[in-house]
Amino acid sequence: MGSDVVTACVLIIGNEILSGRTQDANLRYIATTLGAQGVRVMEARVIPDVHEVIIDSLNDSRANYDYVLTTGGIGPTHDDITAECVARAFGVPLVMSPEIESRIRSRPAPEDVMANRLLMARIPQGATLIENSTGGPQGFAIENVYVMAGIPAVLQAMLPNVEFTGGAVVRSCSVTVYLGESNISEDLKEIQDRVPEVDIGSYPFVKQNRYGTTLVVRGTDDEVLESTLESLKNMIVAHGETPYDITFE
Amino acid sequence: MGSDVVTACVLIIGNEILSGRTQDANLRYIATTLGAQGVRVMEARVIPDVHEVIIDSLNDSRANYDYVLTTGGIGPTHDDITAECVARAFGVPLVMSPEIESRIRSRPAPEDVMANRLLMARIPQGATLIENSTGGPQGFAIENVYVMAGIPAVLQAMLPNVEFTGGAVVRSCSVTVYLGESNISEDLKEIQDRVPEVDIGSYPFVKQNRYGTTLVVRGTDDEVLESTLESLKNMIVAHGETPYDITFE
Repeated sequence: MGSDVVTACVLIIGNEILSGRTQDANLRYIATTLGAQGVRVMEARVIPDVHEVIIDSLNDSRANYDYVLTTGGIGPTHDDITAECVARAFGVPLVMSPEIESRIRSRPAPEDVMANRLLMARIPQGATLIENSTGGPQGFAIENVYVMAGIPAVLQAMLPNVEFTGGAVVRSCSVTVYLGESNISEDLKEIQDRVPEVDIGSYPFVKQNRYGTTLVVRGTDDEVLESTLESLKNMIVAHGETPYDITFE
Repeated sequence: MGSDVVTACVLIIGNEILSGRTQDANLRYIATTLGAQGVRVMEARVIPDVHEVIIDSLNDSRANYDYVLTTGGIGPTHDDITAECVARAFGVPLVMSPEIESRIRSRPAPEDVMANRLLMARIPQGATLIENSTGGPQGFAIENVYVMAGIPAVLQAMLPNVEFTGGAVVRSCSVTVYLGESNISEDLKEIQDRVPEVDIGSYPFVKQNRYGTTLVVRGTDDEVLESTLESLKNMIVAHGETPYDITFE
């Protein structure tokens, strides 16, 4: 990878994803949003609500990637331990954020409910807040770690408010052929070997009993993408087939 | 965790998941299937089609978990590198499986297509095959590592053919209340502290402009689950609310 490659790791925190109770719906959104800003998600980890695991994963990933994004565990209940773990990973105390506190206090509630809500006002010392129009739990950033909600609607109200400093944006183009992968794998390898600066992915499928393969080219140079797509189309035609569903995103 | 806890790690191999192009649809299925056999998925990692990353993740996870399951990268194209990486992780050569070879040769094809198909007959020395009724790419197992397809339909034709030796099966029960988390978080913590042998998860939601929280209790002892569910229902009633949508799975 070139020096203009900016990387990210996503930590998906939550027993409910690991147990199979809940389908993660955030990784794809995060990957697409970051990708458009030139930040490439290189790894994602789904981890349980266990202090040591979260702390180790945070320290490991923040040392190895330009950005770390976490989802989940920032509500007011006993299983919401993300803020505390981030503080421990950075070796700083959890402190009350006056800004969050005054926002929470502006919505009247019985004393005990208010006390519980105020648990969500605690952030690691030195963290900055991530804007969130939903009024839900507060996300925050500390150094290269961005802590966000697990509920997709809340996450999606947070992430667009964060600006990442990305590198070259990866774009992709694709073409589909109604042939099994084994028919084209040799030609495909030759094309990939000729153009190492792009990634060619081959994704087989079966649709209405026909075998097909979608070829996806990913790279940062539009001209190279276009010429590679052209090579793939020519390869398909040389097999006596028709290139379908051409996309360029 | 007690000694009867049998653990698994899932490695989801594929650039297309990390780029956001494809939504993973396998983790939830794997977690549920293994869970029913008493095997708990403790971690999942989404990693790119990069040799070193796959090999390191394999060696790390197979040392730390009872079972490792991989998805993706077992087709015949240049980006299908999982079998090769598993062989390298175990320090064994990739060898032709006579069983897969004869199955592949039984479907006639032009010579070059056949040569490409036969790439899928290579498995790490010492691996055993995983049955797969779809005729798709071959899954295999070596020691505690189970290598499966990324296409959900193919994975779902493989996984039920594997028998895992699990520990106690985790069951779950749940109840929903139309209160925000902050209203019940203190009571919830008290109940969790009283019954440390279960995990109580609290999952807030907004439905038709009403705040609600689903409480999920997970554990291996049905009686403890039932009594904890009872405590949660009493707690909800004590708040003047009605317990909804009670499940026991």
